[in-house]
Amino acid sequence: MTKPSKQLKTFPNPKKDRDYEINFDCPEFTYLCPMTGQPDFATIKIHCIPDKLCVELKSLELYLWSYRDEGVFHEDVTNRILDDLMKAIDPKFIEVTGDYYVRSGIRTVVNTKYEKSK
Amino acid sequence: MTKPSKQLKTFPNPKKDRDYEINFDCPEFTYLCPMTGQPDFATIKIHCIPDKLCVELKSLELYLWSYRDEGVFHEDVTNRILDDLMKAIDPKFIEVTGDYYVRSGIRTVVNTKYEKSK
Amino acid sequence: MTKPSKQLKTFPNPKKDRDYEINFDCPEFTYLCPMTGQPDFATIKIHCIPDKLCVELKSLELYLWSYRDEGVFHEDVTNRILDDLMKAIDPKFIEVTGDYYVRSGIRTVVNTKYEKSK
Amino acid sequence: MTKPSKQLKTFPNPKKDRDYEINFDCPEFTYLCPMTGQPDFATIKIHCIPDKLCVELKSLELYLWSYRDEGVFHEDVTNRILDDLMKAIDPKFIEVTGDYYVRSGIRTVVNTKYEKSK
Amino acid sequence: MTKPSKQLKTFPNPKKDRDYEINFDCPEFTYLCPMTGQPDFATIKIHCIPDKLCVELKSLELYLWSYRDEGVFHEDVTNRILDDLMKAIDPKFIEVTGDYYVRSGIRTVVNTKYEKSK
Amino acid sequence: MTKPSKQLKTFPNPKKDRDYEINFDCPEFTYLCPMTGQPDFATIKIHCIPDKLCVELKSLELYLWSYRDEGVFHEDVTNRILDDLMKAIDPKFIEVTGDYYVRSGIRTVVNTKYEKSK
Amino acid sequence: MTKPSKQLKTFPNPKKDRDYEINFDCPEFTYLCPMTGQPDFATIKIHCIPDKLCVELKSLELYLWSYRDEGVFHEDVTNRILDDLMKAIDPKFIEVTGDYYVRSGIRTVVNTKYEKSK
Amino acid sequence: MTKPSKQLKTFPNPKKDRDYEINFDCPEFTYLCPMTGQPDFATIKIHCIPDKLCVELKSLELYLWSYRDEGVFHEDVTNRILDDLMKAIDPKFIEVTGDYYVRSGIRTVVNTKYEKSK
Amino acid sequence: MTKPSKQLKTFPNPKKDRDYEINFDCPEFTYLCPMTGQPDFATIKIHCIPDKLCVELKSLELYLWSYRDEGVFHEDVTNRILDDLMKAIDPKFIEVTGDYYVRSGIRTVVNTKYEKSK
Amino acid sequence: MTKPSKQLKTFPNPKKDRDYEINFDCPEFTYLCPMTGQPDFATIKIHCIPDKLCVELKSLELYLWSYRDEGVFHEDVTNRILDDLMKAIDPKFIEVTGDYYVRSGIRTVVNTKYEKSK
Repeated sequence: MTKPSKQLKTFPNPKKDRDYEINFDCPEFTYLCPMTGQPDFATIKIHCIPDKLCVELKSLELYLWSYRDEGVFHEDVTNRILDDLMKAIDPKFIEVTGDYYVRSGIRTVVNTKYEKSK
Repeated sequence: MTKPSKQLKTFPNPKKDRDYEINFDCPEFTYLCPMTGQPDFATIKIHCIPDKLCVELKSLELYLWSYRDEGVFHEDVTNRILDDLMKAIDPKFIEVTGDYYVRSGIRTVVNTKYEKSK
Repeated sequence: MTKPSKQLKTFPNPKKDRDYEINFDCPEFTYLCPMTGQPDFATIKIHCIPDKLCVELKSLELYLWSYRDEGVFHEDVTNRILDDLMKAIDPKFIEVTGDYYVRSGIRTVVNTKYEKSK
Repeated sequence: MTKPSKQLKTFPNPKKDRDYEINFDCPEFTYLCPMTGQPDFATIKIHCIPDKLCVELKSLELYLWSYRDEGVFHEDVTNRILDDLMKAIDPKFIEVTGDYYVRSGIRTVVNTKYEKSK
Repeated sequence: MTKPSKQLKTFPNPKKDRDYEINFDCPEFTYLCPMTGQPDFATIKIHCIPDKLCVELKSLELYLWSYRDEGVFHEDVTNRILDDLMKAIDPKFIEVTGDYYVRSGIRTVVNTKYEKSK
Repeated sequence: MTKPSKQLKTFPNPKKDRDYEINFDCPEFTYLCPMTGQPDFATIKIHCIPDKLCVELKSLELYLWSYRDEGVFHEDVTNRILDDLMKAIDPKFIEVTGDYYVRSGIRTVVNTKYEKSK
Repeated sequence: MTKPSKQLKTFPNPKKDRDYEINFDCPEFTYLCPMTGQPDFATIKIHCIPDKLCVELKSLELYLWSYRDEGVFHEDVTNRILDDLMKAIDPKFIEVTGDYYVRSGIRTVVNTKYEKSK
Repeated sequence: MTKPSKQLKTFPNPKKDRDYEINFDCPEFTYLCPMTGQPDFATIKIHCIPDKLCVELKSLELYLWSYRDEGVFHEDVTNRILDDLMKAIDPKFIEVTGDYYVRSGIRTVVNTKYEKSK
Repeated sequence: MTKPSKQLKTFPNPKKDRDYEINFDCPEFTYLCPMTGQPDFATIKIHCIPDKLCVELKSLELYLWSYRDEGVFHEDVTNRILDDLMKAIDPKFIEVTGDYYVRSGIRTVVNTKYEKSK
Repeated sequence: MTKPSKQLKTFPNPKKDRDYEINFDCPEFTYLCPMTGQPDFATIKIHCIPDKLCVELKSLELYLWSYRDEGVFHEDVTNRILDDLMKAIDPKFIEVTGDYYVRSGIRTVVNTKYEKSK
C-alpha cells in the first residue's frame, strides 16, 4: 500500500549526454502551520535539468504527501524541497517555487534555485 | 491576545547559504490621512532576498495593522515600511510597492527599494 | 472636522413621484473580528429604491467608517447596515451585499434585502 | 459660436409610425458637487423610444455642457436629465443611467426611467 | 463597372417553406452629417427572416455605398435602410441596428425592426 | 481512393430510446460564388438530435467536399445541407449555421433549423 | 473652501536619501478647446522620482481643476503640466502622458518627460 | 463651412526645446480603390516627435477627408500621408501605419516611417 | 471574367527611396493533399519590404486561388509562394508563413524567408 | 491498411538551399505508464529546421501511434522522439516538447533539443 515518505526514488537519466528540461507543477501540497498547527496549502513548481538521475513521479507525490502532518515555515519548506531534490538527483540546475494560500491576510510566494558549477 | 505592533518579529533564515526570493502580497492595509484624519486604504507588495533573518508572517500582519490609527502620507508610509523591514531583517534586497485607493480623483502608486552593497 | 458617525444624514428625495434605483459600491469597509479583535475587510454593495428620503453620500462614508473599531460578525454587520439604512430613509426597496475577505481560508458573501409592502 | 444651453433642440421623428430604440452613450459629463463646489464626473447613458420628436445630438452635447458650472446631487441630476428629455421630446419610453466617479470612496450608479401609458 | 445604387437586387428565396435567419454585418458604412456636411461612419447590422425574396449581397454593398454623399440623420438612415429592405424583399421579420462613431462626444446606437403580421 | 460525394452514409443510432445531442464544427468548407465563379469560404456548424440514424463522419467530410466546384448562394447552400441531412437521417431536430467570410465588405451568417413534429 | 489653483503645494520628500517612484493616475481632467471654446476631456498620468520635494495630492487635484475654464491645445497643456511640476518640485525625473478623448474622429495621446542631469 | 482639404494647418510647437511624442489614432479613413472605383476603408495611426511645428487636429481630419473621392493604392496612400505630414511639419520623427479592411479575402497593413538625421 | 492564375501582377513601388513594410493576411487558402487528393486548408501570412515593385492585391488573390486543384506538400507550397513572390517583385525582404489545418491529428506551421544582400 | 510503425518516412527537402522552420503540434499522443500499465496522455510539439530530408506527416502520425501499447517514462519518451527524428531526417535543428497530463497530482513538461554543429 502507498504511504507518504521522505524517500525520493530515482531512475537513471535516460539521456545523460544531452541537457534537457523537466517541469513539475504540483498544485496539491498541504502541511501544518508551525505556529498554530492548522493546515496550510500551496502550489509547488519544480524546474530542473537532470544530470545522472531523474526523480520518479510517484515518489515525488509521496514525498509531498509526507509534509501533511508536519509544521513548517514557508521559507523553510521551499528550501527543504530544493535540498532534498538536490540530494536525491544532484541535478545540473533546479528551481523550486512555492505559492502559498492567504494567511494573516497575506499571500506569500517563495522562489529558490541552484545551479551546479561547471 | 494579538495586538497591533510596530515590532517586526524575525526568525533565522533557514537557508543562509543560498540567495532566494520572498514575495508578500498584502491587500488589507488601512491608515489615516494626515490632512483630514479619514481612513485611507492600499495594497502593499513586498519583494525581498533575505540575509540572516526572515520576517515572521503573523508579525508582518500586526505591523501593517499598527498603522490603522496613524496619520501618514503615501510617500512616507511606503518608505517607512521599507525602513522598518530593513532594520528588522537587514536583507540583501528589498522592494515595497504601495497601491493607494482613489483620493481627490487620483490613484497613487509608490515604489521604493534597497539593495545591500556587496 | 469629519468624524465617524452612526448618524446617517438624509436629504429629501428630489423625485418622489417616480421609482428609480440607486446603487452604491463601497470597497473601503473595515471593522474588527469579534472573536480575535483583529481587523476584517469587505466590500459593501447597496441597492435601493428611495421613498421620501435619500442617504447623503458623505454621511454614508462616515457611517461605514464608524465600524472601524467595532467587533461584529459578518452576518450581523450586513444586516445592521440594512437596518440602519431602513431606519434612516425608509426606502421602498433596499438590498445590502457584503463580500468579505478570506478568513480561515474561506471567503464569505452575505446578501440581505427588504421590500416595503405596497 | 456654440454655447452651453439647457434648451434641447428637437427634430420631427423621421419614422413616427414605427417604434424603434435610440441609445446615447455620453462619457463626457461633469458638474459641481453641491456640498463642496468641486468638480464631479460621470458617464450618462440614455435609452429611448421616440414618439413625435427626436433630440438633436449637438444640442444634447450643449445640454450636458450646461451642467458644467452647476451644483447638483447625483440623484437629482439623473432625474433632471430624464425630466428635461421628457419635456423636450415627450417620448414613449426613456431611461437615464448616471455612472458617477468614486467620491468618499464610493462609486454611485443611479437609474431612472419613464414609460408613457398607452 | 460597379456604381452605387439605391436599387436593391433580389433573388427568389431558395427555401420558401421554412423560416430561417440571415445576418449581415456591415462595418463599412459612411455618409454625411446633414448639419455640417462632414463624413460620418457607422457599422450596420441586419437580421432578417426572408419570405419570398432574398437580398443579393453585392447589391447590398452598392446600396450602402449609395449613402456616401448623402446627408442623413442617424435615426432617419437606420429606418430608411429598414424601409428599403422591406420594400425590396418584404420579409417576415427584419431588424436593422446602426452603431454610429462618436460625434459631439456621444456614441449613438439606433435599433429598429419590423415583423409581418401572420 | 476517397472522392467527393453528395451521398451521406449513415449507421443505426446506437441509443434510440434516449434523446441526445450531436454537434459538428466544420471550419473547412469552400465552394464557388454563383455570380463571379470565385472561391468562397465558410465555417459550417451542425447541431442535431438523431432519431433512428446517425450520419457517418467521413461521409460528411466527402459531402462538404462535394461543394468545392459548385456555384451556390449562402442562403441556398445552408438550407441544402439541412435538407440533405434531413433526407439522410430524418432526425428529431437539426440546425445548420453557415458563417461566411467577408465578401463585398459584409460578413454573412445564415441559420436554419427543423424540428420533427411529435 | 477649496478652490482651483495653479499653485502646486509641496511637502519635504520624506526620504531624500533614496530614489523611489511616484505614479499618479488622474482620469478627471477637463478644459476648453482653444478653437471652439467647447469642453475637452483627458486622462493625465504622472510618473516621477522626487528630489527634495513631493507634490501634495489635494493641491494636484486643485491644479488640474484650474484648467477647467482655460482654452489650451493638447500638446501645450501636456507640456505645461510637466513644466509646472518641474518648477514646483524640481524632481530627478518626471513624465506626463495625456490621453485625450476623440475629437474630429481622432484620439490623441501626448507623452513628454524630463530627466535632471546628474 | 468646413471642407476637405489637402492643406495641413500647423501651429508653432509650444515646447520646442524638449523632445516629446504625439500619437493620433484615426479609425475614420475612406477612399476609393484605383482599380474598381469602389470605397475602401482603413484605420490610420500616426506617431511623431515634432520639431518646430505641430499639425492642427481639425486640419488633419479635413486632410484625411480629402481622400474620400480619390483612387489610391494602399502602399501609395500610406506613404503620401507620411510625405504630406513631413512637408507640413518637418518633424524629428514620424511613422504612419495603415490597417486596411479585407479586400479580395486579404487584410493588408502598411507601415512607413522617417527619422530626421541629427 | 476573373480566373485563377500563377501570374502575379505588379505595379511600380510608389515610394522607392524609402524602406517600408507591407503585411498581407490571407485566411482563404486551399489546395489538395498530394498523397490522398483531398482538400487541405491554411492561412498564409506575407511580410515584405518592397524594392522596385509591389504585388497587386487582386492578382495575389488569383495566385492563391491557382493552388485550389493542385496537389502540394506543406513545406513545398510555403517555399513556392516565397519563390514566386521573389521572382515577381524581387523584394528587399520577404517572409511567408503557412499555418496548416489539422491533418493526421497534427497542426503544421511552416515559416520561410529571404533577405536581399545589400 | 494503415498500421502503427516506428518507421518514420521522409521525402527530400523541397528547398535545400534555404533555412526555414517547420512546427508540428500533436495533441493526440498516448502510451502506457511503465509502473502501472495504465494509459498516459500528452501533447507533443516538434520544431525543426530541415537539412536534406523532411518527415512525412502521415508517417509521423503512425510513429506517434506506435507508442500506444508501450510502457515508457516521460523523460525517456521525449528524448526517444528526438533521437528517432534525428536519425530519420538528420535536421539542422530540432526541439521536442512533451506536455504530460496530470499524474499523481502533478503535471510534467519535458523539453529537449539538438543543433547540428556548423
